[in-house]
Amino acid sequence: MIGAIEAGGTKFVCAVGDETGNIIERIQIPTTVPEETIPRVIDFFKQYSIKAIGIGSFGPIDVNRESATYGHITSTPKPGWRDFPFVQAIGDVFSVPIGFNTDVNAAALGEATFGAAKGLDSCLYITVGTGIGAGAIVQGNLLQGLSHPEMGHILVRRHPNDVYRGKCPYHHDCLEGLAAGPAIEERWGVKGDLLVDRMEVWEMEGYYIAQALMQYVLILSPKKIILGGGVMKQEQVFTSVYQYLQEFVNKYVVLPELSEYIVSPGLGDNAGITGSLMLGYQALLEAK
Amino acid sequence: MIGAIEAGGTKFVCAVGDETGNIIERIQIPTTVPEETIPRVIDFFKQYSIKAIGIGSFGPIDVNRESATYGHITSTPKPGWRDFPFVQAIGDVFSVPIGFNTDVNAAALGEATFGAAKGLDSCLYITVGTGIGAGAIVQGNLLQGLSHPEMGHILVRRHPNDVYRGKCPYHHDCLEGLAAGPAIEERWGVKGDLLVDRMEVWEMEGYYIAQALMQYVLILSPKKIILGGGVMKQEQVFTSVYQYLQEFVNKYVVLPELSEYIVSPGLGDNAGITGSLMLGYQALLEAK
Repeated sequence: MIGAIEAGGTKFVCAVGDETGNIIERIQIPTTVPEETIPRVIDFFKQYSIKAIGIGSFGPIDVNRESATYGHITSTPKPGWRDFPFVQAIGDVFSVPIGFNTDVNAAALGEATFGAAKGLDSCLYITVGTGIGAGAIVQGNLLQGLSHPEMGHILVRRHPNDVYRGKCPYHHDCLEGLAAGPAIEERWGVKGDLLVDRMEVWEMEGYYIAQALMQYVLILSPKKIILGGGVMKQEQVFTSVYQYLQEFVNKYVVLPELSEYIVSPGLGDNAGITGSLMLGYQALLEAK
Repeated sequence: MIGAIEAGGTKFVCAVGDETGNIIERIQIPTTVPEETIPRVIDFFKQYSIKAIGIGSFGPIDVNRESATYGHITSTPKPGWRDFPFVQAIGDVFSVPIGFNTDVNAAALGEATFGAAKGLDSCLYITVGTGIGAGAIVQGNLLQGLSHPEMGHILVRRHPNDVYRGKCPYHHDCLEGLAAGPAIEERWGVKGDLLVDRMEVWEMEGYYIAQALMQYVLILSPKKIILGGGVMKQEQVFTSVYQYLQEFVNKYVVLPELSEYIVSPGLGDNAGITGSLMLGYQALLEAK
């Protein structure tokens, strides 16, 4: 049995399952402070005989195995979690191989193993919700270089009708600053759920997301793009994304039919936890 | 002995050498039409006993081995070269393993093997010249997905003082449309060589290139960035790139000291031909 932790900013999902992606049991734990949340995580896993654990965590995190702070959550503004040694905290209790990556890289792995990109050695998973983040599989590996990607903060051109300043504390009007859920709410004065019939809201959202996809496609050339997260549940955004991306690319590169190329997660809300399970499985294989 | 072809839009460089990067002989051939250029390439290699050939080609090219048009130059506007079956034309004469990739991916490979990124499993090579292109090594492999990257055409924000429309026939004011050599010449009315003392020229150039680097860093997180090509011989551009990139990133991600992170090619103008040699060597190893 393999353990999986999908560590998000508001909740932790913990699960046990197997390498076929089958989830046997799961729980949700609110993300408060490590002293409260982690003991509950440990209590859950203690019920089972687990051979490995995979962690898909909110970030930024240190994924560089040669670093002294490998396995830590690093510069998050979330109270209590800054510099938290996540892998060590779990590894001190469970002497098993531990896989550790970002929540979005985990989701990309889940989708590439069992979801919308099943069987492909390349995909991009983007979540548009409270924040914007992306993970990628490149030639069969989770994308990593100096560190993990931080694709949500790329620069975008402002929509001609957008006078909203932007919400990112670092860059104001980067992609996340203009297109994540909190930016939509602040720009239009109400939550996205109450804006369903306001076409201009989703046209503008599609404009920003399509720009990001233009950059991702030209830089990474993924074989499949998966758009998840709360904002993407407004399905009208996809229509706007397809239209703008077609306009931006302008036939410069040949892409598959966009409605098949850019899709919702095949695993729905389970992409992250399933991918975390696979991170655990990978760690198990590597340890052998 | 291994053969190497660096196929550019104005000239072909052909060389023979070995897997240590040692180049024994080389020639230059003008790029006219395939019927003229290719026989001269073949005549050169016929003088030697070569065990493999590596080709780093101008693009776009088809690098997908499962495609019916693998090894072709595809949609280039260059007369005579559209749909040219490059690998086949060479392979029909020399029955040896042939490596085939973009000129910029080859240059990235050359720099990662013997140049500024020697020993690293990750780097980005960008050329800013007649066009803008980039190649990358990601976790030890040449970056490839659905196709090869086309990073020169990413979207950028316009510099507040720039009223030039942009030169890209597909996107007008994408990175290449605003920052490649021909755009500099058209915007300012004279070639870049005659603009050395015009600070505003290089400040604007740095603004565009730093934006591109911001996106590349957040998406790929390369361990080293190499900036080559004719425009980058104006070394004052580096200063502007460092300043703007620092401003754009705004400490959101931790980067090495920029003057060590973003550098000129260690192999100078030999990055492409040396990388092409290594493409040949890789093909030889794969065939064994």
